[in-house]
Amino acid sequence: MNPLFERVTIVGAGLIGGSLGLALRGRGLADAVVGVGHRQVSIDRALAMGAIDAGTLDATEGVQDAELVVLATSVGLIVTLGEQIASCVRAGCVVSDVGSTKGEIVRRLTAALPEGTSFVGAHPIAGSEQRGIDAARADLFEGATCVLTPTDDTDASDLERLRAMWTGVGATVRTLTPETHDAILARSSHLPHVAAAMLVATLQSPDDDFVGSGIRDTTRIASSDVNLWCDILLSNRQAVLDAVTDFTRHLTTLRDAVASNDRERLAAILAASKRRREALWPDASHHE
Amino acid sequence: MNPLFERVTIVGAGLIGGSLGLALRGRGLADAVVGVGHRQVSIDRALAMGAIDAGTLDATEGVQDAELVVLATSVGLIVTLGEQIASCVRAGCVVSDVGSTKGEIVRRLTAALPEGTSFVGAHPIAGSEQRGIDAARADLFEGATCVLTPTDDTDASDLERLRAMWTGVGATVRTLTPETHDAILARSSHLPHVAAAMLVATLQSPDDDFVGSGIRDTTRIASSDVNLWCDILLSNRQAVLDAVTDFTRHLTTLRDAVASNDRERLAAILAASKRRREALWPDASHHE
Repeated sequence: MNPLFERVTIVGAGLIGGSLGLALRGRGLADAVVGVGHRQVSIDRALAMGAIDAGTLDATEGVQDAELVVLATSVGLIVTLGEQIASCVRAGCVVSDVGSTKGEIVRRLTAALPEGTSFVGAHPIAGSEQRGIDAARADLFEGATCVLTPTDDTDASDLERLRAMWTGVGATVRTLTPETHDAILARSSHLPHVAAAMLVATLQSPDDDFVGSGIRDTTRIASSDVNLWCDILLSNRQAVLDAVTDFTRHLTTLRDAVASNDRERLAAILAASKRRREALWPDASHHE
Repeated sequence: MNPLFERVTIVGAGLIGGSLGLALRGRGLADAVVGVGHRQVSIDRALAMGAIDAGTLDATEGVQDAELVVLATSVGLIVTLGEQIASCVRAGCVVSDVGSTKGEIVRRLTAALPEGTSFVGAHPIAGSEQRGIDAARADLFEGATCVLTPTDDTDASDLERLRAMWTGVGATVRTLTPETHDAILARSSHLPHVAAAMLVATLQSPDDDFVGSGIRDTTRIASSDVNLWCDILLSNRQAVLDAVTDFTRHLTTLRDAVASNDRERLAAILAASKRRREALWPDASHHE
């Protein structure tokens, strides 16, 4: 492939940043990939794996001369790092990210970047359950969905270049407004985390010997990193609140059917969810 | 092993009934195991597998002369079948079951059985996600917990005989009141089903392309059998309602922490659930 970019800088040498570097270099999509890390050991590892051509601990130095900067850190650091590098990027630079929430990030980094540069939000939905450069792999994004979140002010050619990059590493690109992205992910990802954590909280001490595979699987994601999830839930506050409200409303509807011993209504509610889930994962069953 | 029973009748030739027959016969715990089925094909299969010594479609005939009758059907049929056979069991017979809920079953079958016989509730927590005689296996109960739910009126020797049977097939026996059993299982099993189904219900149509492995696992049990779960939720109505109320209260607490942007409180809530879950499944991680 012809390179899409002369120089791409990836800020964050973890799973997503490392995998993106491996994919860009492996597919010849960039002449040079520069990595910015928080610790020298991650930079060294990224260099040894071939995920980057050069690395630095200094973000402002790392982003110089880059046509594209991808902020590939956890959600809580994206805005801070973006604001740090804002005055150091070259004219025409596109800054993007990989964060699980988009509204706040897009708003704040669009405001932070100088005239003649632009921010376009991105969220590759991949690999959220492993972390660190050691888990990085060149095919992480193959078959994954990557959501791009342009706004009315986004330059069409900037969007197309970012789309070409994510398509180039194997992702299926979808475009949503930041607000629509956040509302969808609140229901499809953030709410399930909330529910899993609160199912565990509802258990009482005598319950421990009576937990089966059902609740084990239902609550698996309650073992995820606490800080990461604080960042996600707080940076997507309104959409998460709306999703919890909707969920509570559905719980109340089912609760009412149970309370009034209305078997027909209860069966209709459970059957609708069963059909919906089977449509979402046609190959999976409850035996999986 | 010396047989514990001359004649055990298992009503229901499915996963649990078939596995119990295989385990009793394999370990020599009963001189004869009689199976009662709803369809001849299941009886034939149970005979061919060696799960029973003899089979019949007629429950009242099948339970004659049995020292122990185990009602091994789905929750919705246990009371009906128990009431049908109540007048046909011999003096001294112990009737038991394998239902996932206990209060209503124990109350109604204790009332239905004649003087000189007794009902002792049982719930082996095993194999709930597969069904049918073909999935039966002799080791299904090895390492599983089996809850027995005696009442103040339960004869101690009847309880001990039932305990010996479940211990004999490899289960760890725990004793709880029917009410305590139902309250615990409402939180550890029934509520997770409710939550999984309502997480699916909260998804909206544009969300379908943005579901990852988190929500897939969290909602796995929403694909379970609808009628089975109507039976369970409705026969454990009050405890399920209480569990949903508790869960909603926990959701509200977390929601308030998000709404007020209280990171410290949110982190404390998520960390408590993470620790609790890791204590429940020490070998599992969120990478599992």
